[in-house]
Amino acid sequence: MKIGSYRGTRDFYPEEMAVRNWLVDVWRRVSLRHGFVEYDGPTLEMLELYTAKSGQEIVDQLFNLTDRGGRALALRPEMTPTLARMVNARAGSLPRPIKWFCVPRCYRAERPQRGRLREFFQWNLDVVGTDDVLGDVECILASIDCLRELGLTAEDVVVKISDRRLVGGIFELLGLPGDKYEAAFAAVDKATRLPPEALAELWADSVGSAVPFADLEPLLAIQSRDALRQSDWSVLSAPAVANHVKEVDRLFELLASCGVGDYCDFDARIVRGFAYYTGPVYEAFDRRQSLRAVLGGGRYDNLLSVLGGPKMSGTGMGMGDVVILEVLNELGRVPRLDRTIDLFLVDADRELFDQVLQTASQLRQKGLACEFSYKRQAVGKQLSAAAGMGAKRCVIFGDETRSGGAVTVKDLATQKQKQIALSDFMRDPMQPVD
Amino acid sequence: MKIGSYRGTRDFYPEEMAVRNWLVDVWRRVSLRHGFVEYDGPTLEMLELYTAKSGQEIVDQLFNLTDRGGRALALRPEMTPTLARMVNARAGSLPRPIKWFCVPRCYRAERPQRGRLREFFQWNLDVVGTDDVLGDVECILASIDCLRELGLTAEDVVVKISDRRLVGGIFELLGLPGDKYEAAFAAVDKATRLPPEALAELWADSVGSAVPFADLEPLLAIQSRDALRQSDWSVLSAPAVANHVKEVDRLFELLASCGVGDYCDFDARIVRGFAYYTGPVYEAFDRRQSLRAVLGGGRYDNLLSVLGGPKMSGTGMGMGDVVILEVLNELGRVPRLDRTIDLFLVDADRELFDQVLQTASQLRQKGLACEFSYKRQAVGKQLSAAAGMGAKRCVIFGDETRSGGAVTVKDLATQKQKQIALSDFMRDPMQPVD
Repeated sequence: MKIGSYRGTRDFYPEEMAVRNWLVDVWRRVSLRHGFVEYDGPTLEMLELYTAKSGQEIVDQLFNLTDRGGRALALRPEMTPTLARMVNARAGSLPRPIKWFCVPRCYRAERPQRGRLREFFQWNLDVVGTDDVLGDVECILASIDCLRELGLTAEDVVVKISDRRLVGGIFELLGLPGDKYEAAFAAVDKATRLPPEALAELWADSVGSAVPFADLEPLLAIQSRDALRQSDWSVLSAPAVANHVKEVDRLFELLASCGVGDYCDFDARIVRGFAYYTGPVYEAFDRRQSLRAVLGGGRYDNLLSVLGGPKMSGTGMGMGDVVILEVLNELGRVPRLDRTIDLFLVDADRELFDQVLQTASQLRQKGLACEFSYKRQAVGKQLSAAAGMGAKRCVIFGDETRSGGAVTVKDLATQKQKQIALSDFMRDPMQPVD
Repeated sequence: MKIGSYRGTRDFYPEEMAVRNWLVDVWRRVSLRHGFVEYDGPTLEMLELYTAKSGQEIVDQLFNLTDRGGRALALRPEMTPTLARMVNARAGSLPRPIKWFCVPRCYRAERPQRGRLREFFQWNLDVVGTDDVLGDVECILASIDCLRELGLTAEDVVVKISDRRLVGGIFELLGLPGDKYEAAFAAVDKATRLPPEALAELWADSVGSAVPFADLEPLLAIQSRDALRQSDWSVLSAPAVANHVKEVDRLFELLASCGVGDYCDFDARIVRGFAYYTGPVYEAFDRRQSLRAVLGGGRYDNLLSVLGGPKMSGTGMGMGDVVILEVLNELGRVPRLDRTIDLFLVDADRELFDQVLQTASQLRQKGLACEFSYKRQAVGKQLSAAAGMGAKRCVIFGDETRSGGAVTVKDLATQKQKQIALSDFMRDPMQPVD
């Protein structure tokens, strides 16, 4: 009986695992140097952690289950609710700003498609407990530092930034009723993916006629920082809106100070899908093919209090592993990742094998990656096995070992070899052989 | 509305996460130097992957769910079935022996108790595609190398080893019917945890009267290598059994060659709970308190073919994070794990803050962990914030920067400080300051 895997999940054979580890190492290294500390939560959370924020309609998008005690559980679809729960539980004692990162595996109960799988890893950065724009700056800065470390230049990718306060201010000025904001943001979020007629229809259906779609078109046309600066749309100079334009300007100035201005642009259509965002919001795209965001983030002012915590602002970024690896693969930027075997021990005589085993154990205890053949076979076969797994050097135990206490060390890159006294070799196993 | 976490799961705040990362790093480092390569599979598997091997009764011990397409799924309770599935899918092309390791998160749908949680991490080592005892030796050796690296000596822990072929040979000689082996192994597996009367009762109930419990008592009395060597039990010298005693001797000789003999002992009662084991089996215990195994493993000859693959022998070891961390905490062997901030940048004048931000970005790009205060506040407050997060040194931007292009670098350990030209500082930011 042959059993397959579940579609939308991945088997990480050693080659795929090496790529995943490379990516996760970059995420960790970048996070740490930007002053974030790592945390994690459970994979299984109480289902209500998600319904409290998003209502019952989210249940269909989650893998949910009931345990033997009848408790309704879900596999985490994202990390932010867990973060909010954990911060709330220690809100009084955590020093602020709370700068945390994590690399959780998350789950999505959807039909899998390109760039969206049922299981994925997501790098998360969050700065909680301050409404200072520096929190947004640091999340964007660290994201870009990561893109750069992954080999992506400002010609390859762009971070498109907007601000929900600015867009909300415009909604207000246009006369949008308060109960339509969520629908209006959801419609704007579709603007980069829908043709104008479809978008107009969505707007009419979900937002209604209080603000005709035509009134919104000047906003949707502001797709760059230059367009924002050059726009003569009167709405932008109304005091309540102009104030938010200034906040956007300050954010871009700070990003320029950090040396990442060329990676960043403004785009009024980027407002993000989650309803909990309340301030600066952003998504990064492959410049050649901007359909799918490689990362996204923004500020959330009310999320912690919705989940029973204090009023505490936060801002966060998420980058999944699936889209970024697609982009890197398409651009040929995933490096060659070979495994490292420092030493492969060879016995020229099966009676020396116990000594090989003993030496291998000692070398491994010293921290060296060390291998040998299970089969007692000809030296040539053992040397090929060593070359096959990419070993750096072979150490041959033969007559020279038995009679003179020496081993022959062969560098597989240069093919040079040298007899070395075993005691001398053990003092410095990676000493030069030429 | 305050929502809690699900009992039996853990929140990894930064302190707990640092401990988890320390443990996982040791697992990875030890695996790699012993020549194992990392892989992983999905968390969600088809439910039948587990029922195929263990029958329907396992379903109650699993977190299982049904997706929208009606597919029966389970959260992996252990890694071996996934390993078997993945190896089977590429059985023809993987070079053997397959030496793989992984650190999966696994799930158990049980009431949580001390040492057993609903979510846990488990280090797995497997050598597949060979029935050579060297596979068993390498798994045991790497496990012990890990225990040693975690600070546990042969006085702290012991690996108790037996062999299901030896115990099975004894069953055969005692006249046990073939269909009672599984029940007999399951009863022996309880021998270290049950009082003799309860064990005798279990034996009578599950195995029956073909072999009275009294016949088994000489076997259960063999609880050390000395006892095995010194036993005058006639059964041990019958050829079919003596052969397996020799195999056990060879395993111990090889472990002694590897220098880990003092960590190992024989114990005939160790046969492991999973029915799939067929050869050498072992568990390691804290010597002071031997109730809960810190690791366990053994050889499985038929697992891959049960799951639709070729006949291929394998051997593997698993170590969970929960019990080992309990043992290490009780013995006080978990090291202090402080976060590292290399540099904390301070502005003595808010107009210099943009330069602080710019410098921080450049230092982070060089790989240095760098922090600064979000609030523009007095130098003293910024210095305390730096000390509070354990920064190694502070870099002060003040009058000396504005007038002379210099910064003051202060080592927080020695409290020594020095003015350095900014360009010179950027060339070597961690240069000595005394």
